[in-house]
Amino acid sequence: MQIIECVPNFSEGRNEKVINLLAQTAQKTAGVMLLGVSSDYDHNRSVITIAGNESGIEEAAFLLCKTAAENIDLRQHEGVHPRMGAADVIPFIPLQNCGIETCINLSKRVGKRIADELKIPVFLYEHSATNEERKNLAAIRKGGFEGMSEKILLENWQPDYGERKINQSAGVCAVGARYALIAFNVNLNTGDIKIAKKIAAKIRESGGGLKTLKAIGVSLNGSGLAQVSMNVTNYEVTSMHDAFCAVKEEAKRYGVSVLCSEVVGFVPARALAESARRCLMIKDFNYDTYVLEAFGICVSKREPSQME
Amino acid sequence: MQIIECVPNFSEGRNEKVINLLAQTAQKTAGVMLLGVSSDYDHNRSVITIAGNESGIEEAAFLLCKTAAENIDLRQHEGVHPRMGAADVIPFIPLQNCGIETCINLSKRVGKRIADELKIPVFLYEHSATNEERKNLAAIRKGGFEGMSEKILLENWQPDYGERKINQSAGVCAVGARYALIAFNVNLNTGDIKIAKKIAAKIRESGGGLKTLKAIGVSLNGSGLAQVSMNVTNYEVTSMHDAFCAVKEEAKRYGVSVLCSEVVGFVPARALAESARRCLMIKDFNYDTYVLEAFGICVSKREPSQME
Repeated sequence: MQIIECVPNFSEGRNEKVINLLAQTAQKTAGVMLLGVSSDYDHNRSVITIAGNESGIEEAAFLLCKTAAENIDLRQHEGVHPRMGAADVIPFIPLQNCGIETCINLSKRVGKRIADELKIPVFLYEHSATNEERKNLAAIRKGGFEGMSEKILLENWQPDYGERKINQSAGVCAVGARYALIAFNVNLNTGDIKIAKKIAAKIRESGGGLKTLKAIGVSLNGSGLAQVSMNVTNYEVTSMHDAFCAVKEEAKRYGVSVLCSEVVGFVPARALAESARRCLMIKDFNYDTYVLEAFGICVSKREPSQME
Repeated sequence: MQIIECVPNFSEGRNEKVINLLAQTAQKTAGVMLLGVSSDYDHNRSVITIAGNESGIEEAAFLLCKTAAENIDLRQHEGVHPRMGAADVIPFIPLQNCGIETCINLSKRVGKRIADELKIPVFLYEHSATNEERKNLAAIRKGGFEGMSEKILLENWQPDYGERKINQSAGVCAVGARYALIAFNVNLNTGDIKIAKKIAAKIRESGGGLKTLKAIGVSLNGSGLAQVSMNVTNYEVTSMHDAFCAVKEEAKRYGVSVLCSEVVGFVPARALAESARRCLMIKDFNYDTYVLEAFGICVSKREPSQME
């Protein structure tokens, strides 16, 4: 069976009524499974994770964008995260028996429908992008909701679908296909964000570090600790283990050690298996021939009563 | 859907015709998926791994035992592995939506049928055992095929099913329910098997080491290197990572290091995830809420053409 993931981001992380409405919209769409809802007050932003078949995901993505447009007014929105739309970004991700082409085509159909029916201009991004610059979501989003009315009139910024006029309350939306990425953060035993930033700058691909790895240094609100916040965008090239070891090595240069790490959102078992392989030095390891889950078997947790 | 694994061991690892016949027997049973066939010349032994629904596995396990009885004559058998039957041991393992009780009941039905229809005495072992001593397969198998004619007459060794008389050519068979275990071996950069044996004796549960871990020291035929050969019988208690680290630590005391490790047979993604969790110090990690495979999704390998 083909399974596609969709992880739309919405510019609402405080109003529970609206967040619940979005979750319900996902839940009541046939062929779709709601995996998770995650909201952040400071960012005033929510992320909904759904997975399902192509037609279910297509319908759910559109309905979620519609619900967001009807319930979120960007003119009233404040939050620290960059954003340009009520439904800010809608990525489609191939998970099971599915290629990126399917997700590219899906993103274009959904993008067109959002523009046609909801009157929200759409920019295609990442693998769906129609030019090099638009592959990068940050480039599209630069200037935010507030700057978009003017930006959309610039020569380079004709939307891929819809008119050169933002939706007054819902702004614009980025829609695209991308591969699964892992949001993986490593916490340091220091509050010095400069060290986290230096480590991030050294290990990320754009700094000549590990291929396909993205990294920034941030400061954690609660503990005040510094964190290297990463996106492992291709764990077959740079695994979570590679990223973890690189942070640990670089941290040593500053006399700093690693406290722990965290995974935000969902992770494929393959990515964890790849880390275990490297960490345990398992030779000739092949996920598809060794791991029961590769055969579509979902091994249950052992009954607690039988713990030896 | 309920999925049960069965990993019968057969006393034939050289005659390809017989090995193929066994594989075909598994393949043609409805409701059963053949995951793997592994044969060893020196041990003169083959292991077949199948998974499927209860009725399919029940039928396949019986038919495999029948095929083995018709094609393997223990009186002609030579090999270094301890054995007592043509189908030597038949374990049933709960994988998905299944408890150990289901596998215990299944083992009893199959055991009775083997005794009734094939005239092969059956001993129930592990979680199916009818007394403490029989929980341990090694205790049942002690003396091997050659000693079984006399052993079966001893007061303690009345079979659970069948008469006190071994099958002349097919011997006896152990049938039981157990949990999934991981055969995990760590290779040392020394040929000194004494060191491997000392490490194994120190780290295994029976030596006061890691709970639920079994370990022995062996010498590898090809390379002459020493290996700590382990069974991780409950990765929730002692993970592959714990076992690996224990070997590494102990090896240091002898000035020896770890070259690599290997997994023999199949492994649940949970076991690898648990090792990744400990290795990467991931806090608040929960397989059932973080890992896509826990939702029954089988994330495909990324298309090679799309490697970035």
